[in-house]
Amino acid sequence: MIKTDILIIGAGPTGLFTVFEAGLLKLKCHLIDALPQAGGQCSEIYPKKPIYDIPAFPEILAGDLVDNLMKQIAPFQPGFTLGERAETIEKLDDGTFIVTTSKGTKHHAPIVAIAGGLGSFEPRKPPIPKIANYEDKGVEYIIRDPELYRNKRVIISGGGDSALDWSIFLADVAESVVLIHRRNEFRGALDSVEKVQELKDIGKIELITPAEVIEIIGKEKVQAVTIKRGEDEFDRACDHFIPLFGLAPKLGPIADWGLEIEKNAIKVDNSLDYMTNIPGIYAIGDVNTYPGKLKLILCGFHEATLMCQSAFQRIYPEKRYVMKYTTVGGVEGFDGTKKEAPKAVIKSIT
Amino acid sequence: MIKTDILIIGAGPTGLFTVFEAGLLKLKCHLIDALPQAGGQCSEIYPKKPIYDIPAFPEILAGDLVDNLMKQIAPFQPGFTLGERAETIEKLDDGTFIVTTSKGTKHHAPIVAIAGGLGSFEPRKPPIPKIANYEDKGVEYIIRDPELYRNKRVIISGGGDSALDWSIFLADVAESVVLIHRRNEFRGALDSVEKVQELKDIGKIELITPAEVIEIIGKEKVQAVTIKRGEDEFDRACDHFIPLFGLAPKLGPIADWGLEIEKNAIKVDNSLDYMTNIPGIYAIGDVNTYPGKLKLILCGFHEATLMCQSAFQRIYPEKRYVMKYTTVGGVEGFDGTKKEAPKAVIKSIT
Ligand SMILES: Cc1cc2nc3c(=O)[nH]c(=O)nc-3n(C[C@H](O)[C@H](O)[C@H](O)COP(=O)(O)OP(=O)(O)OC[C@H]3O[C@@H](n4cnc5c(N)ncnc54)[C@H](O)[C@@H]3O)c2cc1C
Ligand SMILES: Cc1cc2nc3c(=O)[nH]c(=O)nc-3n(C[C@H](O)[C@H](O)[C@H](O)COP(=O)(O)OP(=O)(O)OC[C@H]3O[C@@H](n4cnc5c(N)ncnc54)[C@H](O)[C@@H]3O)c2cc1C
Repeated sequence: MIKTDILIIGAGPTGLFTVFEAGLLKLKCHLIDALPQAGGQCSEIYPKKPIYDIPAFPEILAGDLVDNLMKQIAPFQPGFTLGERAETIEKLDDGTFIVTTSKGTKHHAPIVAIAGGLGSFEPRKPPIPKIANYEDKGVEYIIRDPELYRNKRVIISGGGDSALDWSIFLADVAESVVLIHRRNEFRGALDSVEKVQELKDIGKIELITPAEVIEIIGKEKVQAVTIKRGEDEFDRACDHFIPLFGLAPKLGPIADWGLEIEKNAIKVDNSLDYMTNIPGIYAIGDVNTYPGKLKLILCGFHEATLMCQSAFQRIYPEKRYVMKYTTVGGVEGFDGTKKEAPKAVIKSIT
Repeated sequence: MIKTDILIIGAGPTGLFTVFEAGLLKLKCHLIDALPQAGGQCSEIYPKKPIYDIPAFPEILAGDLVDNLMKQIAPFQPGFTLGERAETIEKLDDGTFIVTTSKGTKHHAPIVAIAGGLGSFEPRKPPIPKIANYEDKGVEYIIRDPELYRNKRVIISGGGDSALDWSIFLADVAESVVLIHRRNEFRGALDSVEKVQELKDIGKIELITPAEVIEIIGKEKVQAVTIKRGEDEFDRACDHFIPLFGLAPKLGPIADWGLEIEKNAIKVDNSLDYMTNIPGIYAIGDVNTYPGKLKLILCGFHEATLMCQSAFQRIYPEKRYVMKYTTVGGVEGFDGTKKEAPKAVIKSIT
């Protein structure tokens, strides 16, 4: 059982910044995310694209925003349960919560902060018969660990950035890479399309277009796939088949936790502290809704900050917290580090 | 008469970022500030100190934060009325406002956003008889333009960072600099104290401590001051006497505009759009109050963003605004510049 002060569901920008604000209040945080990495939409959908409306950054790549947040929160040593989806929640008699993931990992905390964004990202799966039987037996929709593919025969299908970028990356790792797409045209960053062209020309990536995988062959695990190109159908042996058709967020199991839902988002009290209808459970960032809500990163930061103050009061009803500016009080990490502004001296001039 | 869409009172971080969010909605902004420079508390009180809780900046100097914001808003060409205090407001029959400053400058706008922080910064004045008669006639409490002091005889009094830093700066500009302080000890950045010591040692700054100015002498303008050190009293000729005892913010004239005030701050509707009790006037950043309010920079950013959406609806009640992410829609400046993410290409691989 993982124990913490604030259990955060969702490691997007909102969830990450929560760790910082909680840390200033000496509260510990643990984050759960269905994705294998932190950063939410920023990391999963547009890591290499610039954002222009993060205050005081005239321009920042979404991936750099996440890196900066990870650096900022590092002193508060957050825990992570990645690659697991939060499935169920149970409220104990003492008002604390137990949250269990898709892999059975249990987390216990007095406060739950749902920072689930548009929901947990679920892969779009191609309509191939019995594909579910091969999941994690050679079929993967998300690449969690590229080392899995070392010296393996890999077939990727898809026509967007993920399919292009992973084909490029695995060309150096796998024994062979075949990229299948139902059109001749790919849609992605110019760089990526050109790089695939180059790797194809030198024979490091094989392209089969316009074509589709229509069947998976294999006993225990994937051994080959059947490919259809025009009228042609043929089999191709492989160890892994990786359909990369994008991830779509789904609110998922959280929708059944007894929270008030409106327009696929969780209703909160924005006049106070972004608490949901269940005391002790807050919802912040893209996942919540209230009058005038904007699904923007900077709004999640503010919501997280106010929410942490309220969480502190719930955990320590008798303590009176007096806010100190970070400039004045510094930042004391749980790792023993301390950042602080150089102090003024009092010194005579002689 | 200066005309604009959103008239912002206060050019602190909140007021500055408002320009950006308004600009995304194609609304023009003009800012009024009593200080000679933009940046509010960050520029006036702690420009060289680090802030640790600006999201995605593990550390940023307050002065750099302001510089970054100025860069971010530049494409939206804000107007500035600096060094003037907003004094009166008048609501016209058509619901628009005229705001007049201490120097009589008039501004006309359908929306007023008060981002006045803790108030307009007013200097702490020493209790010297008739000092008011000499204001702007040789007595200045704020240095607006250092060139005014070129080749002049300057007497500065004070024992903190401003007194130290301006003595250092003016040592190269003025004919002579005398620094008077009622103690021998100064309180400031170590660098500054050491630099003053150095300039004193080589005779570029004269120090008189522990001492006080007790009288100002001059017909039309300052000609000398009387200094008291222990039992001694003596006169010293000068062109300028600059008491630098710090600035204290005062809500000031805004307190008489008919706005609901609580704890020296303006009450707003935080459940919706940070509007005050007067429709068309909003209050954002440190200047406002609501349940759970935190006087933090990141909160001002969020409040400004929601406020601009509401302002847009008031100005264009029939238009339906559909928010576009900056990453997707780019940023189109009023100066003709356009920033945008590199577009994906659709390209066949042959
Ligand atoms: C192309 C694009 C461009 C954008 N441009 C901008 C922009 O310019 N400016 C801007 O402010 N915003 C922009 N956004 C929106 C911005 O990315 C979101 O506002 C932001 O990511 C929200 O952060 P979050 O932390 O609230 O949620 P998310 O980033 O969505 O993260 C939520 C995380 O929660 C996880 N999760 C959800 N449910 C569960 C569960 N049950 N178990 C485990 N994990 C779960 C998800 O896997 C996800 O990682 C853009 C979005 C896109 C897609
Ligand atoms: C030493 C110190 C350390 C701090 N550290 C932190 C920190 O670590 N993190 C953090 O988030 N915050 C910190 N703060 C607080 C932060 O600086 C404020 O929250 C922020 O400046 C508020 O921004 P604002 O734009 O709302 O108001 P301000 O920065 O106060 O700006 C308001 C401006 O309005 C002007 N004004 C007011 N009334 C009038 C009028 N009638 N006419 C013309 N002009 C007017 C004022 O002159 C001023 O320039 C700190 C503050 C101090 C003093």
